[in-house]
Amino acid sequence: MVVARVSVPATSANLGPGYDVMSVALESPRLEVEVEPRVEEGIELTVTGKYAEEVVRDTSLNSACRALRLFTSGTDKPKGWRVRIEAGIPVRKGLGSSAAEAVGALLAARAAMGMRFARKEVVRMAALVEPGGHADNVAAAALGGFTVVFKNQRGFDVMKIRPPERLGFVVVIPDVSKESTGSSRKVVPKSVTMEDHVMLTSRVAAMVVCIERGDLRRLFELVVYDPLVERARADAGLYGRYRWRELLGEKERLLRKYGVAMTISGAGPSRLLWYDLRRNTQEEGKRPIDGAVNDVVSSLESKGHRVLEVIWTRPGRKGAEIVNQ
Amino acid sequence: MVVARVSVPATSANLGPGYDVMSVALESPRLEVEVEPRVEEGIELTVTGKYAEEVVRDTSLNSACRALRLFTSGTDKPKGWRVRIEAGIPVRKGLGSSAAEAVGALLAARAAMGMRFARKEVVRMAALVEPGGHADNVAAAALGGFTVVFKNQRGFDVMKIRPPERLGFVVVIPDVSKESTGSSRKVVPKSVTMEDHVMLTSRVAAMVVCIERGDLRRLFELVVYDPLVERARADAGLYGRYRWRELLGEKERLLRKYGVAMTISGAGPSRLLWYDLRRNTQEEGKRPIDGAVNDVVSSLESKGHRVLEVIWTRPGRKGAEIVNQ
Repeated sequence: MVVARVSVPATSANLGPGYDVMSVALESPRLEVEVEPRVEEGIELTVTGKYAEEVVRDTSLNSACRALRLFTSGTDKPKGWRVRIEAGIPVRKGLGSSAAEAVGALLAARAAMGMRFARKEVVRMAALVEPGGHADNVAAAALGGFTVVFKNQRGFDVMKIRPPERLGFVVVIPDVSKESTGSSRKVVPKSVTMEDHVMLTSRVAAMVVCIERGDLRRLFELVVYDPLVERARADAGLYGRYRWRELLGEKERLLRKYGVAMTISGAGPSRLLWYDLRRNTQEEGKRPIDGAVNDVVSSLESKGHRVLEVIWTRPGRKGAEIVNQ
Repeated sequence: MVVARVSVPATSANLGPGYDVMSVALESPRLEVEVEPRVEEGIELTVTGKYAEEVVRDTSLNSACRALRLFTSGTDKPKGWRVRIEAGIPVRKGLGSSAAEAVGALLAARAAMGMRFARKEVVRMAALVEPGGHADNVAAAALGGFTVVFKNQRGFDVMKIRPPERLGFVVVIPDVSKESTGSSRKVVPKSVTMEDHVMLTSRVAAMVVCIERGDLRRLFELVVYDPLVERARADAGLYGRYRWRELLGEKERLLRKYGVAMTISGAGPSRLLWYDLRRNTQEEGKRPIDGAVNDVVSSLESKGHRVLEVIWTRPGRKGAEIVNQ
């Protein structure tokens, strides 16, 4: 039994019409979870790092701690854990910080106990700690790349898709605060018309083909439109002062004017901007993506929202990985 | 203006959970449509071939004729058509015979008029002739391979996926007669629970990845389960004397016992059996797929259904093609 430290990427789930199905790992930001088995009972939690103040400290609520309790439930080895979270992922901004904590804690705990890394098994367990048991963020956090989570006869399974080389991301984080992902799941409609179901299924299927093939032009057209979950959440006020019509108008403008797709990251409020690196090779500040970021920031400010952070990143090929040992 | 003859493959739509989205062309059977512009008004229809007796002769209802009228609507060139259908695809058995007629007629008409082949444009127009405007069969008939039809800002678009090399199909056609695909669309539920929507979307997305990658084992597990449309149609009696539970039981048995997946082809009643050619290299009669076919046939007979035909085929790489000129 040793100390094990695992680095886990931020993730963006849903990706437009792919609610509870599609997700993508980001190259950055990442957080780290370090665990050490101890002989005393209970969990001792330390949080450091940029977003330390916002991380839940109550060990009965913190995702890393809940995951560890699940991991050891029914056994007494080890009795307890020392846990340190290096909080590098913005908290409650739709970037999968709780998923990253759970995945990091479970993989670190397995490493500390000398067990196999077993990413998919960790996805299954980490999902149980997530609101509604949704596995999309934890899947991308554990495996990296784009992921499709699907139910099968044995529970669920995950497929990973290599991200297109040319794809870049910018995350724009506004100061909209949400209570929790759990409460933002409550406004999701309970049913879908057959027409919307067919339309959404077909778009997600086509998105998957576009990601596999690196067809960014078509992908961007497909990913921006979600008349189901994004619409319900926008109209419930979860994305700040943007109702669905305004949000859709902004998406259409960004795509037309800059060739940039915008999705709401997870349950929001962060915006994920998708751009083609090969179409943005001009001098910094003069690229279409710079125009798009300025456009999104101005739009938020004109609505009275402050932009907390703009993060330039891209899809992360790697999922969680051990960084000590 | 010349005579043009086009050969079009049979198609199998839905493929389990992919209602109105997924479809596949079959290497055989195929039908042919020959058209010749004429100076007199009206359409003169001749039907020959194996299934000639079952083809609709009323030129106001026949799909090839309806497609041609749509093609020339608003123009007077040509005034009329001579049409010959070589009916090689079983009719009203869920194998896309009407879709093949419409696609064949439109492509032949374009060729006869010296126009570009324009498969995707033909898909759009042929879909208008199909019940509910569904484009899945016409897409696979026109393009070949597996197809994903999706709505976009400009109407709809199609993506083609190359079939896995190792995939084989057997079509089992029972004597269950259905009124029409149109009437079997009426029993499809009007809405879907969010839980089923997420499950089905995720399975279709994963199916697409499996087809792209040739991962037949996972594909077979995914394709067999459709608790939405197949269930509603089974329980409405559209698949003969099989209610949903029995149908699902049969699917599970075939997969477990023979490694063979079974889906209902389109609106039924034909069964499409999916098998791995590399796992069926034994002597004919001793292969797992032979066991599966016998099993399906015995099951149908034990329910008092006669099996009209068993067709050994595989996914068709090629869509519609000109066979004269």
